[in-house]
Amino acid sequence: MASTSAVQAHQQAVEALKAKEAALRYDHAALSNMSADEARANTIFTRLRDAEVQSTWDKEGDLDAFAGMDFYGAKKNGLGQASQVWNAVQRMPKGALLHCHFDGTVDTKFLLEHAKKTPGMAMKTDVPLSTPEALWKATVEFLVLLESTERSKTSIYSEEYVPGTWVSLQDARESFPYPHPYALEPKTQPNGDIPSSSDAGLAFDGYAHALMTMTPHQAVPAITNSKQAWAKFQSTFGVIAGLIGYEPTLKAYAKELLRSHARDGISYTETRINFLTEFMVRQDGAPDLNHEEWVRIFIEAVNEVKSEITDGSFVDAKIIYTTVRFIDNDKLRWYLEDCIMLKKKFPEWIVGFDLVGHEDPLLPLKVYIPELLRFQQRCKEEGVVIPFVFHAGETLEDGADADLNLYDALLLDTKRIGHGVSLARHPVLTDMAKERDVCVEICPISNQVLGYTASVCSHPSLLALLNRNVPIALSSDDPSIFENFGLSYDFYQLVISSKATSLVSLAALARRSFKYTLVDDAAKTVMFEDWDRRWNVFVAWFLDEYGHLAKQ
Amino acid sequence: MASTSAVQAHQQAVEALKAKEAALRYDHAALSNMSADEARANTIFTRLRDAEVQSTWDKEGDLDAFAGMDFYGAKKNGLGQASQVWNAVQRMPKGALLHCHFDGTVDTKFLLEHAKKTPGMAMKTDVPLSTPEALWKATVEFLVLLESTERSKTSIYSEEYVPGTWVSLQDARESFPYPHPYALEPKTQPNGDIPSSSDAGLAFDGYAHALMTMTPHQAVPAITNSKQAWAKFQSTFGVIAGLIGYEPTLKAYAKELLRSHARDGISYTETRINFLTEFMVRQDGAPDLNHEEWVRIFIEAVNEVKSEITDGSFVDAKIIYTTVRFIDNDKLRWYLEDCIMLKKKFPEWIVGFDLVGHEDPLLPLKVYIPELLRFQQRCKEEGVVIPFVFHAGETLEDGADADLNLYDALLLDTKRIGHGVSLARHPVLTDMAKERDVCVEICPISNQVLGYTASVCSHPSLLALLNRNVPIALSSDDPSIFENFGLSYDFYQLVISSKATSLVSLAALARRSFKYTLVDDAAKTVMFEDWDRRWNVFVAWFLDEYGHLAKQ
Repeated sequence: MASTSAVQAHQQAVEALKAKEAALRYDHAALSNMSADEARANTIFTRLRDAEVQSTWDKEGDLDAFAGMDFYGAKKNGLGQASQVWNAVQRMPKGALLHCHFDGTVDTKFLLEHAKKTPGMAMKTDVPLSTPEALWKATVEFLVLLESTERSKTSIYSEEYVPGTWVSLQDARESFPYPHPYALEPKTQPNGDIPSSSDAGLAFDGYAHALMTMTPHQAVPAITNSKQAWAKFQSTFGVIAGLIGYEPTLKAYAKELLRSHARDGISYTETRINFLTEFMVRQDGAPDLNHEEWVRIFIEAVNEVKSEITDGSFVDAKIIYTTVRFIDNDKLRWYLEDCIMLKKKFPEWIVGFDLVGHEDPLLPLKVYIPELLRFQQRCKEEGVVIPFVFHAGETLEDGADADLNLYDALLLDTKRIGHGVSLARHPVLTDMAKERDVCVEICPISNQVLGYTASVCSHPSLLALLNRNVPIALSSDDPSIFENFGLSYDFYQLVISSKATSLVSLAALARRSFKYTLVDDAAKTVMFEDWDRRWNVFVAWFLDEYGHLAKQ
Repeated sequence: MASTSAVQAHQQAVEALKAKEAALRYDHAALSNMSADEARANTIFTRLRDAEVQSTWDKEGDLDAFAGMDFYGAKKNGLGQASQVWNAVQRMPKGALLHCHFDGTVDTKFLLEHAKKTPGMAMKTDVPLSTPEALWKATVEFLVLLESTERSKTSIYSEEYVPGTWVSLQDARESFPYPHPYALEPKTQPNGDIPSSSDAGLAFDGYAHALMTMTPHQAVPAITNSKQAWAKFQSTFGVIAGLIGYEPTLKAYAKELLRSHARDGISYTETRINFLTEFMVRQDGAPDLNHEEWVRIFIEAVNEVKSEITDGSFVDAKIIYTTVRFIDNDKLRWYLEDCIMLKKKFPEWIVGFDLVGHEDPLLPLKVYIPELLRFQQRCKEEGVVIPFVFHAGETLEDGADADLNLYDALLLDTKRIGHGVSLARHPVLTDMAKERDVCVEICPISNQVLGYTASVCSHPSLLALLNRNVPIALSSDDPSIFENFGLSYDFYQLVISSKATSLVSLAALARRSFKYTLVDDAAKTVMFEDWDRRWNVFVAWFLDEYGHLAKQ
């Protein structure tokens, strides 16, 4: 055996090396400055986390589950159900949500409930839904129509249905002829029986849910790669569009977005609104509700939710103007001018500009350079500040256009990077993001569901960037579609699968998110102070609940 | 629109940034110093590659395939079948293979052919193979027995079979009662018919193949995560052990290892031999062939293959002594002394020491520090140099023991790192590996099949380390089991899925691999010179074959 001193020398060298690396991390300052209560809570939490890994994710003989596994597999194994770690993660203050798409944020069940209460809501498909197979081949659309607009009386489930004709949603729902497994809450029912009207409605709801989410349904083929995931993902937005694009629903939806985020401990949201279509539907069914009115409705919604708050806690939301990366430069100019117009009308509410969509097949930023540079000029002329917050590097393609978007985004002075899945493989860009303090909005569950990583811990950039202290804000992206509502799911998946991550690490991530919001310093100060207060309340609750475990 | 000069200035800034990053890469010197022929070949190859991506991996409307996809999915889509890129990759000189486990390297069909010709080869299982389900639940073992050892006459497929009793392989094979889909080369046959004796043999071969490989078989449940993959993976070695552990087969196998590598353009192999078991079986069936004799047989095999070579090309192989990370320190000392003994007897042949096995559940390096440090002392006393070449970081667990193995390995002065899947998330260790010129043996297909990444391009470390010019040697790990024989599959998967990788990039990787072999400089010079000659021949062939495409 080697001498004790040689062994000790080796162990000391290992500890020194670990300390050197830990000192670079995002949570180093927070871990170095814990209060006594924080330190106690952190120790207890780590113990609870390790125990939960053992009891749920790493059970002896269970080869199916593992910590950080794919989101739907994890849900099957209990993710989202009450547990010590889940309860703590859900209850903790999460800071700002910096990356979510407005029309992909709220539970689709909320939209469906509103649709059911909207008499003018109509539905159409491009093929009759006359067979079970047609259900999944069809492109389904919803829209609120003027009362005067004619609806077809032919059942959408009949072979006689003329593709593209509108039928009443209420009729379509109550006459849904397919039983279970499309029902959201399945009822046992002899196979083949025509379901009763209320069963039909439930089964229809299950079908609509399957159309609007990535959540696996028995009747839908499993998704095995990013191309398949994107095909399904894109189809969901077309279904959602007609449900959300109606004045009263839009307002209710915006309010629910804030309320549901507040329930999850998120105090501030910068949501990307897609302004690609020019109009939504007015209360009376007229299809001419314009962009300015969208923003006005959003502001009303935010202000109404704020006025509901009685405990003094902070909640707010802002808009990042987005359009989609398949338009040409001429059209882009129209949107950029539209964005400037809205910014001038609502200077506090429009906080950034982005181009969204599937980066691999769509147009790269380099195509849009002339108009994007002109926009920077125009903002100066108009005396407004609208920073870019570009999606970039949401790809596995190495050296292809989507990957190269990272170069253009950084040189266009993007304030944050949406996704940056491929960022960590770029040493110079990684350093540049860190030096320029550009925050990377990483969406772990989104990236996994959309096929960029098999699990949180195999993510090509998440841990690499965290350990280099490149600023990261965990984000949910499109929880309507993935069903990772709020930030609890993404926070849980990280902390359960990474021993290097503790409660105080999550808190450091959450708190720092405010630094990268696109509001002024005074507004940030308000958010920091509110968060600090919430955090202290949380730590007190946590110790009250679990403090007795400290001595075990 | 922005002024032309502003657009140009942006584009120049992008190009400058890309150039800055490209200058850090492993292929920068090679790409900067191409001969005219190399440059032509490189341009043509990139064009062929891009075309093959379009025609095979990114076909319009095909949502199943993508470049760099999972290995078995890729095989279904044509990987390994003649194509312009495959042919070029297969034909190019690949340099040294630095990470492969001896008993997991050669095609299992080769072993099976030898087993069929070995009269003493016996088989046993822990349950009767009396139902199709039992086939996949059973632990199957093979072993060559002394002629005098009794074999059971009861069929292994009968309910009367006594678990653990040996039966003749020949009998078991020819009476295999299950038809297709176990056959390697399936023959259409009315379902349920008792197959004829030769069909039975083919079906048995298919079954044995399924037992020894990860290649998906219709009858075997699909593998969806790393735990399941390792369970299957480990079971294959137990089946293989009895086939390979027989003196004549061992020698034939070692020769086939070199020959098959030579056919794939690999000129030098450092193979990890697992010395955990003390003895293999002698030609006459006696189970007492010791470690010293294994090495002697290996040397004979290498020398015989060398003597077969008539075209002057270089081929060679060396041994890395390994044992498994579940033993205790006392036992480890025995192996370390055994390793020193073999090194002294065969100084040119034993070139390193490693501990192998599934890092997540097995013992971490930190447990073995006393004996590993003592070994370094003992080597000095004995006047031998046996560097460590440790597996480390073959894990997704962040901050757990397997991940922390990287710290111990580097501080124990490991000359290379086996796998290093988690290395890129450690900024200090990444820099350290680069500064100390420690090569990371990355096994892309192995890592994917064993559940550490969903595809080559989502690998947590491969591209990040390549772009930082941390030394990388692509390796095959266990091609017997994965069926990624040679290096062509791993090279192909990288170059087809990464636009940033070209033919000359692959050549730079291949050539540099010799630098990290554990032989002296004179030996390296021979390998470099041989490779340069082969490369020139290859470029000439490539231009001869595809040069006419240069003008298209």
